[in-house]
Amino acid sequence: MRSNGRKSDELRPMNLSTHVNKYAEGSVYIEMGDTKVLITATVDEKVPPFLKGQGKGWVTAEYSMLPRATQSRNQREANRGKLSGRTMEIQRLIGRALRSVVNLHALGERTITLDCDVIQADGGTRTTSITGAFVALAIAVNKIAEQHKLAVFPITDYLASISVGIAGGQALLDLNYEEDSKAKVDMNLVMTGSGKFVEVQGTGEESPFSREELDQILELGEQGIRELIERQQEALGPIAAKIGSVNASTGV
Amino acid sequence: MRSNGRKSDELRPMNLSTHVNKYAEGSVYIEMGDTKVLITATVDEKVPPFLKGQGKGWVTAEYSMLPRATQSRNQREANRGKLSGRTMEIQRLIGRALRSVVNLHALGERTITLDCDVIQADGGTRTTSITGAFVALAIAVNKIAEQHKLAVFPITDYLASISVGIAGGQALLDLNYEEDSKAKVDMNLVMTGSGKFVEVQGTGEESPFSREELDQILELGEQGIRELIERQQEALGPIAAKIGSVNASTGV
Amino acid sequence: MRSNGRKSDELRPMNLSTHVNKYAEGSVYIEMGDTKVLITATVDEKVPPFLKGQGKGWVTAEYSMLPRATQSRNQREANRGKLSGRTMEIQRLIGRALRSVVNLHALGERTITLDCDVIQADGGTRTTSITGAFVALAIAVNKIAEQHKLAVFPITDYLASISVGIAGGQALLDLNYEEDSKAKVDMNLVMTGSGKFVEVQGTGEESPFSREELDQILELGEQGIRELIERQQEALGPIAAKIGSVNASTGV
Amino acid sequence: MRSNGRKSDELRPMNLSTHVNKYAEGSVYIEMGDTKVLITATVDEKVPPFLKGQGKGWVTAEYSMLPRATQSRNQREANRGKLSGRTMEIQRLIGRALRSVVNLHALGERTITLDCDVIQADGGTRTTSITGAFVALAIAVNKIAEQHKLAVFPITDYLASISVGIAGGQALLDLNYEEDSKAKVDMNLVMTGSGKFVEVQGTGEESPFSREELDQILELGEQGIRELIERQQEALGPIAAKIGSVNASTGV
Amino acid sequence: MRSNGRKSDELRPMNLSTHVNKYAEGSVYIEMGDTKVLITATVDEKVPPFLKGQGKGWVTAEYSMLPRATQSRNQREANRGKLSGRTMEIQRLIGRALRSVVNLHALGERTITLDCDVIQADGGTRTTSITGAFVALAIAVNKIAEQHKLAVFPITDYLASISVGIAGGQALLDLNYEEDSKAKVDMNLVMTGSGKFVEVQGTGEESPFSREELDQILELGEQGIRELIERQQEALGPIAAKIGSVNASTGV
Amino acid sequence: MRSNGRKSDELRPMNLSTHVNKYAEGSVYIEMGDTKVLITATVDEKVPPFLKGQGKGWVTAEYSMLPRATQSRNQREANRGKLSGRTMEIQRLIGRALRSVVNLHALGERTITLDCDVIQADGGTRTTSITGAFVALAIAVNKIAEQHKLAVFPITDYLASISVGIAGGQALLDLNYEEDSKAKVDMNLVMTGSGKFVEVQGTGEESPFSREELDQILELGEQGIRELIERQQEALGPIAAKIGSVNASTGV
Repeated sequence: MRSNGRKSDELRPMNLSTHVNKYAEGSVYIEMGDTKVLITATVDEKVPPFLKGQGKGWVTAEYSMLPRATQSRNQREANRGKLSGRTMEIQRLIGRALRSVVNLHALGERTITLDCDVIQADGGTRTTSITGAFVALAIAVNKIAEQHKLAVFPITDYLASISVGIAGGQALLDLNYEEDSKAKVDMNLVMTGSGKFVEVQGTGEESPFSREELDQILELGEQGIRELIERQQEALGPIAAKIGSVNASTGV
Repeated sequence: MRSNGRKSDELRPMNLSTHVNKYAEGSVYIEMGDTKVLITATVDEKVPPFLKGQGKGWVTAEYSMLPRATQSRNQREANRGKLSGRTMEIQRLIGRALRSVVNLHALGERTITLDCDVIQADGGTRTTSITGAFVALAIAVNKIAEQHKLAVFPITDYLASISVGIAGGQALLDLNYEEDSKAKVDMNLVMTGSGKFVEVQGTGEESPFSREELDQILELGEQGIRELIERQQEALGPIAAKIGSVNASTGV
Repeated sequence: MRSNGRKSDELRPMNLSTHVNKYAEGSVYIEMGDTKVLITATVDEKVPPFLKGQGKGWVTAEYSMLPRATQSRNQREANRGKLSGRTMEIQRLIGRALRSVVNLHALGERTITLDCDVIQADGGTRTTSITGAFVALAIAVNKIAEQHKLAVFPITDYLASISVGIAGGQALLDLNYEEDSKAKVDMNLVMTGSGKFVEVQGTGEESPFSREELDQILELGEQGIRELIERQQEALGPIAAKIGSVNASTGV
Repeated sequence: MRSNGRKSDELRPMNLSTHVNKYAEGSVYIEMGDTKVLITATVDEKVPPFLKGQGKGWVTAEYSMLPRATQSRNQREANRGKLSGRTMEIQRLIGRALRSVVNLHALGERTITLDCDVIQADGGTRTTSITGAFVALAIAVNKIAEQHKLAVFPITDYLASISVGIAGGQALLDLNYEEDSKAKVDMNLVMTGSGKFVEVQGTGEESPFSREELDQILELGEQGIRELIERQQEALGPIAAKIGSVNASTGV
Repeated sequence: MRSNGRKSDELRPMNLSTHVNKYAEGSVYIEMGDTKVLITATVDEKVPPFLKGQGKGWVTAEYSMLPRATQSRNQREANRGKLSGRTMEIQRLIGRALRSVVNLHALGERTITLDCDVIQADGGTRTTSITGAFVALAIAVNKIAEQHKLAVFPITDYLASISVGIAGGQALLDLNYEEDSKAKVDMNLVMTGSGKFVEVQGTGEESPFSREELDQILELGEQGIRELIERQQEALGPIAAKIGSVNASTGV
Repeated sequence: MRSNGRKSDELRPMNLSTHVNKYAEGSVYIEMGDTKVLITATVDEKVPPFLKGQGKGWVTAEYSMLPRATQSRNQREANRGKLSGRTMEIQRLIGRALRSVVNLHALGERTITLDCDVIQADGGTRTTSITGAFVALAIAVNKIAEQHKLAVFPITDYLASISVGIAGGQALLDLNYEEDSKAKVDMNLVMTGSGKFVEVQGTGEESPFSREELDQILELGEQGIRELIERQQEALGPIAAKIGSVNASTGV
């Protein structure tokens, strides 16, 4: 029995609202149980120096937690004067994952920055950020596509992320903080709408895991991702149909 | 005529919700028009080194804006590796203002940190932070008072803050961003429930102001503060009556 | 009775010497009692990036204390690797105050930096810095005006600053450190030669203050400022007459 | 055909020397093709603050590249004043991986720091660091075990790491830099001597990968790890037999 | 002919005033021509961690230049967030030089910090700092010696410093900035009252120098140092006689 | 008798290998006894901002020690977020010394960076770095000279460095760490192939030294430098003959 009465393959109650910020080109507020993340997508009509003049765009992410998003208060990284290794690792992951479903040439020379600010944390903040950031990104990209009459919609596929762990000898989907801290194995998966893997990040620091356990985890995760993508489609409304459509035909 | 149809002495629509964070000892979400601030109060059972062993507590504040709280995206201070002068000035102001209505001896050797995170900014983020932070502080102090059966309730008076400006030759209450950027004078006032001044911070960088203009500003501000304090009392419910009550009789 | 035998409305003995640095375009050494500040004005023939191409100049300030300016030694901010909030607040104040009496268009695309280095501190270092920096600025501006034959003298009015406090139930002008640390209210005023307010910064952290007390403070301050401006005029000699003169007629 | 004539499942020429530093408690110089890493293990008879008094030890790692380890020179992180996200991610990975095969209670209250300094980089620096660091760790732990007559040898299993990628439609073992930059998928595996997974980190930023491709990668990796562990055993000589032996019997 | 009419072996006009700061335990204002340095000695009744419990004291120095001490304004090191290599090199030199004539055991477990702040720079700031800092140190040490009735006066010998250069084929004593920037060789010497060398730092970046040139430099420097020490003795008055006296007899 | 049986004027066993890095334009691995330094020379086809457009090149150096190069582990400077004063002093010295034998005009607008990374330290790391860096520099310069068919070989003379100390009343050449920590005087000399001084840096913090002692030190150093330059010539092979040759005839 899971603490909140969930079944082993059951996601937490999920809420996904769009257009929650009056200035940003795309914005999402997402809740997975008690994990709450506010995400904005900002479009900048230029690219980082290393991409200049290549006719390609860029997608990047920043991640942060409010000091009291957690049980006990965390010092702000701005006060410590630097980002923690954990923060950098997470924001690199979010950016990399999102880029895997963006046709950067179709996007043109512009940068989209996804700011994922965790308002409250109860496990799965990085996976929730990715799932929500995909929606904010799609809204912002749609705005660009409409303004600039892009021939190809630059998002090639859906993308969502979920955690799976093994605790008490059983694989569990979408761990909350309490479950996560007891889990022997912790796996974060990022997958596309077509069922392919973008990131597989599993750690068995407490206890190495077997190939069989890995297989169980992957199956549970695949199912969770499918549910998340349905929810993203609902939230995106008419934009949903544009994703991957043109690219499928052109084979980009 | 003000852009949003307000009268010169009219506050923006205000929303003040409490208990919005599951971990913090006190929490408030406050909206003044399109300015939105999330505030948590964290209680720590120890004091900073400079206060150790004096039997007194401490109240301090931190202030931050999410990158896309504003029209164009701001770089995170954690990325720049240091706080801006503006941020430091604001968080020093919030802490100092709140301490003026706290009986630090009655609080005992504990620290309360008010985290004011601006979710969306449309002028008046520092004054909105102070008004909201007072409520979060009162909730957290009440929790301490009940747990530790404090003889004296450590909050001695109400406290709220508002901005007043002079624009188009007229004094205006509670400026939004558009009004603020056109104002010749910008004054932030922090006042107590008993109508005294805690902070008077007026700047006439664009155009110095006369004693008569200062008087007008002070009157408008005084009236705005009274309204804000009424709203704080509603939000605090039964805690409202405890503020200042014991101290009034003991003269602390 | 004040510790040094001063009356409540009496300034400390003041000394203001000019041309104390062989390299700077303007320089002042100012003593207000035991508070001693060395100020240089540096002219740079370019403006910060945010002002480029606007035909306007800029005036900015930096403030620092020597480690042993105070009773006990302070660690250098260069060693701590960052400026304190107090330093940033003060240097923002000095710059803002000075700009209020400079016609930045008349100055042209150049930056003047006022470096205020406190040699010895005994209260009122920020107000003394402003009073002295105005003189250093005027000397540097005069040099520019003569070299470039500016049609309009870019300084529109005099500017000085003083602190006023309430201690022992009485308003006191120009607090030294000992008085300042006992004062219940501490107000810093910046005013122009025409008697207008540029900055009003009053804090009653220890004890909120009433409207009547505020009025007393303002009157005492106004009188102190008038005396300071007379001393500035003496120090400036022939430059004194240029300030505000042309601008008064052109209505800038 | 691979650039250096290797078969798809063939490791690069490997060299592993021990005792290469006269001061360190354990040291290794490891070459995998043109990737060269110098590793020292330092024993410190205390633990980080968060572990104090728990009777447990700690194993941690630091990773750095010499400026000219790469094709073009990289700025030193000491000059930039902070570690890059990549460096932090790698050193967190190395530490976490090594801890998975250390019985921290058996180690006692001491910290072992593995410094992995990349002398020359040609792909696979993080996996090479882990493989080499395990050997340096075992030598240092053996020294502790002998000096303090530990009842249980604190290393519970072997540990090695390898990268596998998919390039040109084929899974390739142990990518060099040229292969890595062309690969569509890049997977780093950390496995134990008993064939379990400690870390599975796969990224398909360029092109998401299917479940079948993942399976191929895992098989190739498993085989590579077995070969690496044989080389570690040779390098460790008499220490090799101590690893995991006692723990196997006591079931720690 | 030197620019200011000096002979090749002639020091610049020198001024050395003591007791120029109302708080510091020792203070000196020294001018060598247009080079002006303010020096304070601060006594702290504890030692740095690495010396704790050894019964020895410590002498250290910090060095800084005001931004407009030089021809063109220098950015403050506090703003850049770190000390330059030049600053660190100079303050290490000053501290090391002063310690060479202090009997740290006789000083007892206390630290003396010499703050050397360059008010105006015209060459020779480091040597002028050492010469002045010695006097500030002696005054502070004398205060300690009197308060704590030390049996042995902890300063064992006089110490002064001067620069010598070779320009236009001729060795010149006490270079000003203009001479220094034209010199092919630049040597800073620190010597004791008994004519021994404490520091010999000569650089021929522009042009290596011969043994004969080195000998000329050393002779000129030796003579300059003797004159400087006479001036230190005058400035120290009755303290002068205590230096080295007891130690000479006890052979410390 | 010296700890390792050396005579007072005997260098430690020396090993100098070239071409040890596959990417760098010049590289050297040098051992002086147990001191081991890896040096790479990187050529960059541009110059620092302060040299732009002057038709001159630049030579600079960076110095670092691996954490366990020493008896006890040193924290990485990248982790502390800044370089120590010692590191900055050493890298300034290495750069300055090398530039003294480079004709920067003949080099053209390019920068050569010498990275000196100390793999193991046993005294004399800065002098060993200079001696080795000269060889790496010559190899890189030779590559430039051949590619760009430079008319004048830009290295004007040989350059090497050695330490000399006085311990037990005797001058000793090439101190190891143990000797260095006991020495009363520590002198680092940098000299050219034509026997001139480039740097003379002697410190008698523990005990000031006389003119006679200085003379002894200089003689011992001169002899050591001659031996080192012979070893550099052997290592450089055919490049050796190019150094200083053309310049001698053209009088550059």
